[in-house]
Amino acid sequence: MGVVVPFEEKSGERGSIDGLIHLLAGRMERVNSLILSRTGSDVTMIPEVANHLISSGGKRLRPMLTLATAVLTGYEGDGDIKLAASVEFMHTATLLHDDVVDESDMRRGKLAARMLWGNEASVLVGDFLLGQAFKMMVEVGSLEALGVLANAAAVIAEGEVWQLAAAKNTATPEDDYLAVVRAKTAALFAAAAEVGPIIADRPKAERAACRSYGTNLGIAFQLVDDALDYGGTSDALGKNVGDDFREGKITLPVVLSFRRGSNEERDFWRRTLEQGEVREGDLDTAIAIMRRHRALEDTIERARHYGAMARDALELFQDSPMRQALLDTVDFCIARAH
Amino acid sequence: MGVVVPFEEKSGERGSIDGLIHLLAGRMERVNSLILSRTGSDVTMIPEVANHLISSGGKRLRPMLTLATAVLTGYEGDGDIKLAASVEFMHTATLLHDDVVDESDMRRGKLAARMLWGNEASVLVGDFLLGQAFKMMVEVGSLEALGVLANAAAVIAEGEVWQLAAAKNTATPEDDYLAVVRAKTAALFAAAAEVGPIIADRPKAERAACRSYGTNLGIAFQLVDDALDYGGTSDALGKNVGDDFREGKITLPVVLSFRRGSNEERDFWRRTLEQGEVREGDLDTAIAIMRRHRALEDTIERARHYGAMARDALELFQDSPMRQALLDTVDFCIARAH
Repeated sequence: MGVVVPFEEKSGERGSIDGLIHLLAGRMERVNSLILSRTGSDVTMIPEVANHLISSGGKRLRPMLTLATAVLTGYEGDGDIKLAASVEFMHTATLLHDDVVDESDMRRGKLAARMLWGNEASVLVGDFLLGQAFKMMVEVGSLEALGVLANAAAVIAEGEVWQLAAAKNTATPEDDYLAVVRAKTAALFAAAAEVGPIIADRPKAERAACRSYGTNLGIAFQLVDDALDYGGTSDALGKNVGDDFREGKITLPVVLSFRRGSNEERDFWRRTLEQGEVREGDLDTAIAIMRRHRALEDTIERARHYGAMARDALELFQDSPMRQALLDTVDFCIARAH
Repeated sequence: MGVVVPFEEKSGERGSIDGLIHLLAGRMERVNSLILSRTGSDVTMIPEVANHLISSGGKRLRPMLTLATAVLTGYEGDGDIKLAASVEFMHTATLLHDDVVDESDMRRGKLAARMLWGNEASVLVGDFLLGQAFKMMVEVGSLEALGVLANAAAVIAEGEVWQLAAAKNTATPEDDYLAVVRAKTAALFAAAAEVGPIIADRPKAERAACRSYGTNLGIAFQLVDDALDYGGTSDALGKNVGDDFREGKITLPVVLSFRRGSNEERDFWRRTLEQGEVREGDLDTAIAIMRRHRALEDTIERARHYGAMARDALELFQDSPMRQALLDTVDFCIARAH
């Protein structure tokens, strides 16, 4: 499982989220306490399931986006804490439901909740977290922020259904795949980043800039994830290399490889991903085909393109430690691929 | 499947929802149009799945409660239409997720959506409808109404998880079972009825009265449903007699029969419901045991008790056609058992 694809590294593109983590340490501690208290329930299965996932060491990138754009745009209240926790709850609910839909065994390097407590608990605890998320949003009292996050919830689900309907089609065009990524991943990044300037009561242009930053960071993040699934190590990924392959997921490296491939290679993709007939050694073959067509490298190139848009979106704001931290975060998301 | 248990009928207790239907006909038409338009999506599976359930002839009791209490408390705007549609979406989402959790084959006399489109679609389309529900609530612009409905969403899910954890325990005390009913069924009835006076900007006492009406109507409704599952006909029920029995659900008729039963009978309940070993003729035996202990009649008696509370809650309001229609609805819900 230690296949590592050597991506080209652009000089200076190492990036870091240390700045973000450092600047937001105090506020993230409050978000984490709130998350813990709001997963509390007399029904012990709820905190068990929720904390299994929440405490399993995700980077909390999405809630940090809310805190960061609130600080960036001069917000001085407390509403960002609750909105950030809501964003994390929405994300966790999505992961719980995704695992049921994808029949995943693993999540973030641990057994998926559904393997431990059953599909039923994953569905229902996800619903509980969504309900709690909306309750917290109501407490913040911004109808605009609520609208942005409710819209993201609907868009995410719509994107997942679309993917379900379009699943297993190796001939998916790149545009269609990107539309799924926009819905499934980027919509929550975008909403998380937009609610900061909304509660700071900043003008439309700043909201749009933060939203654009979130959208493009989200796309870049997902594309790098797609590449990592064929070239990272289990440790870095928190899931096994080849999970997407084994689950028959059509991701950008596959889309590119299929388009650029020979008839024989296309038959390979159809057999393994559409028909789900995966044999010993197929993952190595898949990675070899991807290398032949530079599919992983070009997936990262595409990610760089969206990363550049994310960075440009922040040009509207004056330089500040928070702005720099957000810029570094873009580089970090892309440099994960190395 | 034509086992009909002759419940005692109290004189004059036939009830009807015709008054409610008649008084709200125009507004319900608008709710129905809104429901249709908000299930629309370029992803064709979404309207397919949603309309399969939404158009399958539920009584739309919950959204009618929102419209009715808005009229009752003098509301003159349009917000009740969107809130009523939101309530129906929340209910539909719950049904979709319930079917996955319960592994049900049938719903409202049709194949459950999960049997036609798979568990995945049921989970995700449910999520989509929840997202759309919250979007509509945001459009109405009442944070208080939003808070009440968001709270209901969390309580419903919490109740379902509790039921999951407590499932298959034939020794469940009546109080515990009622707590589940309050969460799973009554919470949405209560919220649906409370948001009417909220958007009408009426004082706390009227909100509490409408909420109490909804809660108690919801409990009565569920208990009658429990009894019908052992004594109605398939036609009246929209599901098969004995569904709860086959799914091993612990409902009030079981709770009462278990408490009142002999050791031999308790062994029967443990075998059929806890261990799921159901043999030919067991449903008939179950119904015979229930008759012996008057468990179905007493379940309806309990329902009458909650129905009386629902009626009393409306004493606060002056007599009006809408108030009378809401009173008749209580009787209708209980008279379904005959």
